[in-house]
Amino acid sequence: MKKEFLDAKENALKSLHDACGHGKVDEGVLPILDLINKIEGFYTSSSCAGRIVLLQIPQIGDKRSARFLGIWHRTIEVDELRAASTKATTGLLWLLAQAPILHIGAETLQLADKMVKTAISCGFKNSAVKSLSKTIIIEICSTERLDAPIGRDACLFCDEKHLSLLVEISNEIIERSQEKIGRLTKKLTNFRDFP
Amino acid sequence: MKKEFLDAKENALKSLHDACGHGKVDEGVLPILDLINKIEGFYTSSSCAGRIVLLQIPQIGDKRSARFLGIWHRTIEVDELRAASTKATTGLLWLLAQAPILHIGAETLQLADKMVKTAISCGFKNSAVKSLSKTIIIEICSTERLDAPIGRDACLFCDEKHLSLLVEISNEIIERSQEKIGRLTKKLTNFRDFP
Repeated sequence: MKKEFLDAKENALKSLHDACGHGKVDEGVLPILDLINKIEGFYTSSSCAGRIVLLQIPQIGDKRSARFLGIWHRTIEVDELRAASTKATTGLLWLLAQAPILHIGAETLQLADKMVKTAISCGFKNSAVKSLSKTIIIEICSTERLDAPIGRDACLFCDEKHLSLLVEISNEIIERSQEKIGRLTKKLTNFRDFP
Repeated sequence: MKKEFLDAKENALKSLHDACGHGKVDEGVLPILDLINKIEGFYTSSSCAGRIVLLQIPQIGDKRSARFLGIWHRTIEVDELRAASTKATTGLLWLLAQAPILHIGAETLQLADKMVKTAISCGFKNSAVKSLSKTIIIEICSTERLDAPIGRDACLFCDEKHLSLLVEISNEIIERSQEKIGRLTKKLTNFRDFP
């Protein structure tokens, strides 16, 4: 088990290093990933710092054909959303504001349980163990989100007032996400010291 | 462990029976709960069949003060949503369409893992083990959802076309949820027979 875990960790760290080299890792999430990877018994897998997304989907549920018209790992202005929407063609337009998602491999169930409880105590209430077989994988995630259909076939269905509200709430989700990442980072610096 | 699990199961079944007596269980989800409770090594805890909700929230994230203006465990018409919105007073108006959530206690990690994998194979891709300590609790859940701010302070910010789109997509989520519940029900009838 120990050897298997260490091999998995080595591969994960290599992938993370490569992804960083190609600019494929959200900078906002890198410090906490580094911190987790320094704790014995854990390694990080695919992770996202939280983001606002403008998505075009041909049909409901047809995520494979989804097209990203805009992705922002930060707060945005209404004009940026409007500008991104001019790239729309055919299909549904969704505005999404997504909290961070961290995937973490754990060496033992006990460590996995402790990490999930720590994350929940920092506001990541949707954290759970995603996989138990062979490798143990935890997902750290919170509940705030916005998933709003805002138009169809290149047409925005929202007036200025509504767009402002949607952007205001999306930005609030990003800000809260960053606060929670900060809280978890602080708590993880002495993860090994508390029971 | 065996005794502890059986006590927990007995309590859960009693709670479910009482909740049914008070009309507090979604009827759409009752057959699958009964089915799961008949499988050795599992019992169901709080569960929801999937629903469309009109919610009023005084401040972003302040869910404790949220007020339900409408709850439907079925597809709806635009007029029903509009009628429910007339009860709004102060705060943000959110329209939510939520997939089913089933909480299940499992006797062993092996059974928990098998149930999570079965649920994922039926389309409940967000299923995971929520708690590992003392009792093992699984959450079965899928990814489709709509969480859209649609107005503020008793004012709907959506025109007729936008409201129709929101209701159309919400209804689609409810219909897909019911299909998935059907698929999982079918698969669980011979849960003990497959590896």
